[in-house]
Amino acid sequence: MESDIGVIGLGVMGTSLARNIESRGYRVSVFNRPHSGKEDKIGAFKSKFGKSNFFATDNLEKFVQSLSKPRKILLMVKAGAPVDEVIGELVPMLSKSDIIIDGGNSDFQDTQRRLKLLEEKGLLYVGMGISGGEKGALNGPSIMASGSARAWEEIGKIFLAIAARADDGAPCCLWTGPEGSGHFVKTVHNAIEYGDMQLIGEAYFILKKCAGLDNGEISDIFDEWNRGKLGGYLLEITSKILSAKAPDGEYIVDKILDCASQKGTGKFALKTAVDENVPFGLIAQAVFARFASARLQEREKAAKLYPDSPAANPRAEISPSDIEDALYASKIMSYAQGFALMRSVSIRRKWNLDLAAVARVWRNGSIIRSVFLDRIARAYESDTELENMIFDDYFADAMRGGIERLRKAASLAMARGCPVPCMAAALSAFDSMRTLNSSAALIQAQRDYFGAHTYERIDSPRGEFFHTDWASLEAEKTEE
Amino acid sequence: MESDIGVIGLGVMGTSLARNIESRGYRVSVFNRPHSGKEDKIGAFKSKFGKSNFFATDNLEKFVQSLSKPRKILLMVKAGAPVDEVIGELVPMLSKSDIIIDGGNSDFQDTQRRLKLLEEKGLLYVGMGISGGEKGALNGPSIMASGSARAWEEIGKIFLAIAARADDGAPCCLWTGPEGSGHFVKTVHNAIEYGDMQLIGEAYFILKKCAGLDNGEISDIFDEWNRGKLGGYLLEITSKILSAKAPDGEYIVDKILDCASQKGTGKFALKTAVDENVPFGLIAQAVFARFASARLQEREKAAKLYPDSPAANPRAEISPSDIEDALYASKIMSYAQGFALMRSVSIRRKWNLDLAAVARVWRNGSIIRSVFLDRIARAYESDTELENMIFDDYFADAMRGGIERLRKAASLAMARGCPVPCMAAALSAFDSMRTLNSSAALIQAQRDYFGAHTYERIDSPRGEFFHTDWASLEAEKTEE
Repeated sequence: MESDIGVIGLGVMGTSLARNIESRGYRVSVFNRPHSGKEDKIGAFKSKFGKSNFFATDNLEKFVQSLSKPRKILLMVKAGAPVDEVIGELVPMLSKSDIIIDGGNSDFQDTQRRLKLLEEKGLLYVGMGISGGEKGALNGPSIMASGSARAWEEIGKIFLAIAARADDGAPCCLWTGPEGSGHFVKTVHNAIEYGDMQLIGEAYFILKKCAGLDNGEISDIFDEWNRGKLGGYLLEITSKILSAKAPDGEYIVDKILDCASQKGTGKFALKTAVDENVPFGLIAQAVFARFASARLQEREKAAKLYPDSPAANPRAEISPSDIEDALYASKIMSYAQGFALMRSVSIRRKWNLDLAAVARVWRNGSIIRSVFLDRIARAYESDTELENMIFDDYFADAMRGGIERLRKAASLAMARGCPVPCMAAALSAFDSMRTLNSSAALIQAQRDYFGAHTYERIDSPRGEFFHTDWASLEAEKTEE
Repeated sequence: MESDIGVIGLGVMGTSLARNIESRGYRVSVFNRPHSGKEDKIGAFKSKFGKSNFFATDNLEKFVQSLSKPRKILLMVKAGAPVDEVIGELVPMLSKSDIIIDGGNSDFQDTQRRLKLLEEKGLLYVGMGISGGEKGALNGPSIMASGSARAWEEIGKIFLAIAARADDGAPCCLWTGPEGSGHFVKTVHNAIEYGDMQLIGEAYFILKKCAGLDNGEISDIFDEWNRGKLGGYLLEITSKILSAKAPDGEYIVDKILDCASQKGTGKFALKTAVDENVPFGLIAQAVFARFASARLQEREKAAKLYPDSPAANPRAEISPSDIEDALYASKIMSYAQGFALMRSVSIRRKWNLDLAAVARVWRNGSIIRSVFLDRIARAYESDTELENMIFDDYFADAMRGGIERLRKAASLAMARGCPVPCMAAALSAFDSMRTLNSSAALIQAQRDYFGAHTYERIDSPRGEFFHTDWASLEAEKTEE
C-alpha cells in the first residue's frame, strides 16, 4: 500500500506532524537517517506507533518508493546545510512533479534559491513555516506556505486538515504566495514572538519592582488581563508560570536562572529589517535583551559596581491598569513594526502578501495567538493599502488612549533603574513617527559639513540637493 | 622615473589621498577608468595637478608599468563588486610580492576572502579603513590597516607619513593585525559615529523642546561643552552649524529637510553585532532613527493623527548641565557597546586587537576625534583584559556621577513626547547590565512552557538543564 505523504526527520516536530497527518486518515511514511551509536529513532517510532497507519524505514530509497505519485515529502530537518544535503540525496530518486516541502525555520532566501533549483529540474518545492511547538504540531499548528503554486493543489488539503482552527472555524493555514514568502512570514512571526515575550517580561518587572507586587499578585493581574484586550496564549501561560510553586512552596520562576537563550530566528528577522531599511527598534531590543541576559558574569560585576539607589525602592504611583495600557500600546508598536516589514518586503518583491490573512493565520496554533490578531485582520481588511497599523481607526484610538500611560510607565521605570528596553523602544518609535522637524535635520547638516554629503530643503522639492560651505556659509545647489 | 605608489580611482577620497602622499615627497601614479560621456577625470587631474610629482593615465597597463617594484597600488573604488573587478584586471599584470591595498569601506569578510585569494597567488593584500572625509584624506586621515604583514614593512612608512598626528605627536595610523581586522575596526568606528551624531541630535532636541532654548543658545551651550569632557570634532561642528544663518537672517539648520541619509556602514556594523551576540541597542536605534526619518510621508500622516498634547509645552525643570551629563553617560554606553563588539570579535577570531591603540588611532583625523578617546585608551592600557568600559574606574565614576541626570533627561523627554531612542537605549543597556534576577527568568520559563526548551537554575551549576511540566508542575532534570 502506498503512502500519501512522507516525513523525513523524526525530531519532536517531525514526529508530531507525522502523527497529526496520520490521525486525519492519511497513510504516512517516515524516514530518519540511521545514527551509529545514537538512539534508534525508527525503532522507537515503530514500537510506539507501529499499529497506526505508518511505514517507517531508515532506508531512503525504500522510503521514496513507498510514496504515491506525485510524491509528497515533508522535510523536518535542521535549517541550513542539512536541508541542502537531504535535497541532494533525494533529487536523483524523484520523478517529475514530485514535491519537496521544507517545514523547518529556513532562511527565506535559501528557500528561494532551492525553489529555483528544483523547479529547473522539473520538481516542485514548497517552503513552509510551522508555528506551535510540539503540541501545536500534534494537535494543530499555524502554517504559512509558499513556492510552487502547482504543488499546493496537491498538498493543500492535507495541511488544511492538520492545521489549527480559529474560533470562526477557519483553518490556520495560508498559502502566502510566491518565492520564500511563507518562510519570511514565519520569520516575522518569530520576531513578534520575541517582542511579545520581552514586553510581558517588562510589564512583570514594573509590577514587581515599581509597584511592589509579588508573583502571585502579578499572576492574578495577568489572568485578569488575559480576559480582555490583551488576551492570548503567552499571557495565559505567563499567569500560570507566575503562580507555579515547587513542592517546597517557593515560586518556580524565582529559581530559574535569568539567562535567556534563543535559536536565532529573532536575529535573522532583525537583520532582514536592517537590510530593508525598516525601523525595527522594538524587536531589536528584544533580541539584545536576550544577548545581555546571557552575559551573566558581566552582569554580576555590574550589579556590584552599580547597586540600586535606596531612593529607587518605594512603591510608585502606578496602577496595574496603567501598566496594562502601557503594555497594549507597546504591543501595537511591536506589531506595527512587524507588519511594516512585511508590507515593505511584499511591495519590493511583488509578493502581494495579504496582511489580513497573515494576521488570521496566526489566530490559533501559533505561539502568539491572541484576540489582538482579529483587530489587525480587520484593520487590513478595511484598508488593504494601510501604510502602518497605527493609522487604522481602532489602533489610533487605542494609541491615543494608552500613550500617556505608556509614557508614565516607561519614564517611571527608567527613573527607577528598571530596564524596559522594549517599552522605551515602543515609545521612541511612536514619537519618532509623529515628530516633524526632527533632529535628523541636524544629522544631515553634520554629514554635509564633514563629508559634503548634501541635504534637501524644506522649501525646495524633494530630489534637489544642496551643499553649504559651512566655513564661509555659502550655500549652493548641487548636481548629484 | 618610476612612481613609489599608485592610486586607482580619482573620486574625492582617491584624489585627496594621492595629493597627500605626493605632498610627503613621493611620486604617485594615478589611474581612472575612461568613462564615455562622463567627466574626463584624468584630464581634469592633469590640468589641476600636472606640475606636481604625478603620473596620470587612463591606461591601466601603463599605470602598472610606471610603478617601482614591489608595486604598491591603493584602490579607492566603490566597495563591493568594483573592488573585485579591479583586482581581477590587475592580477595578470602584477608580479610576485606586489601589494594591493583596498582603502574603501569594504565588508571585512570580503577583505578576508580577497586576502586569501591574492596570497595564494603570491601577491600581498591590505585592507585599510580610512576615516576623515575629504579634508582628512588631504591633510591627515585616521588609518586602520590589516592583512599581509609583510606588506606593511613596505607601505607602512608612506601611510604613517600621511596620517593625522595626535596631540602627543603619534601618527593616527594603526596596523590592527591579521585578516580583515582593519576594515572591521573601521566598521565599528562608523557605527560609533552614527551613535555620536544621533546622541548630539537628541541632546539638541531636549534643549530645544524640553528646555525651550533656540538654536543660537544651544550653539553657545555646545561650544561651552566642547571645551570640557565632551570636547570633539562632531560637537564643534554642531555648534557652528547651529549658529549658521543664511543671508536672510534665518538659521540654515531650520531649512534642512529632516530626512537623514546613510551609506550603509551603520547597517553593516549592526548586523555584525547581531551575528556576534553582542548587545548593540544604542547604535541599532541610531540606524533605525535614520530609517524612520527617511519615511517622511508616514511621519506627516502620524504627526497629524497624534499631535503634541498642550501639556507637553511648558519649560521643564532641566538644566543644560543635566543634559551635558546625560549625553556623557550615553556616550560612554555607546562606546562601551562598540568596544565590547571589538573585544568579542577579537577573541573569537584570535586577532588580539589592541583596544587602547584603536582608541588612540581615532584621536585625530577621524570624524569621531575627541578628548574622550584618550580616556578610553587609558582604560585599556591599565587593563588590557577589561571586559567592558564601564568597569574602568574613570568611567565608573562618570557613570555614577551622570546616571541620575541621564534618567532625568530620558524620562522627561519620554514623558514629553520628545524622541530620544539612543539615550533611552543607553539607559536600557546600563540597567540591563546591572540588573540581577531579571525578567529573563520569565522568558526562559515561557520557552520551557511552550517549547520544552529547558532552563538552568540559580541553585544548580551552569550547564545543568531542567524542564518543568507546567501543567502538572512536575520538574525534572534533563539530559541535553
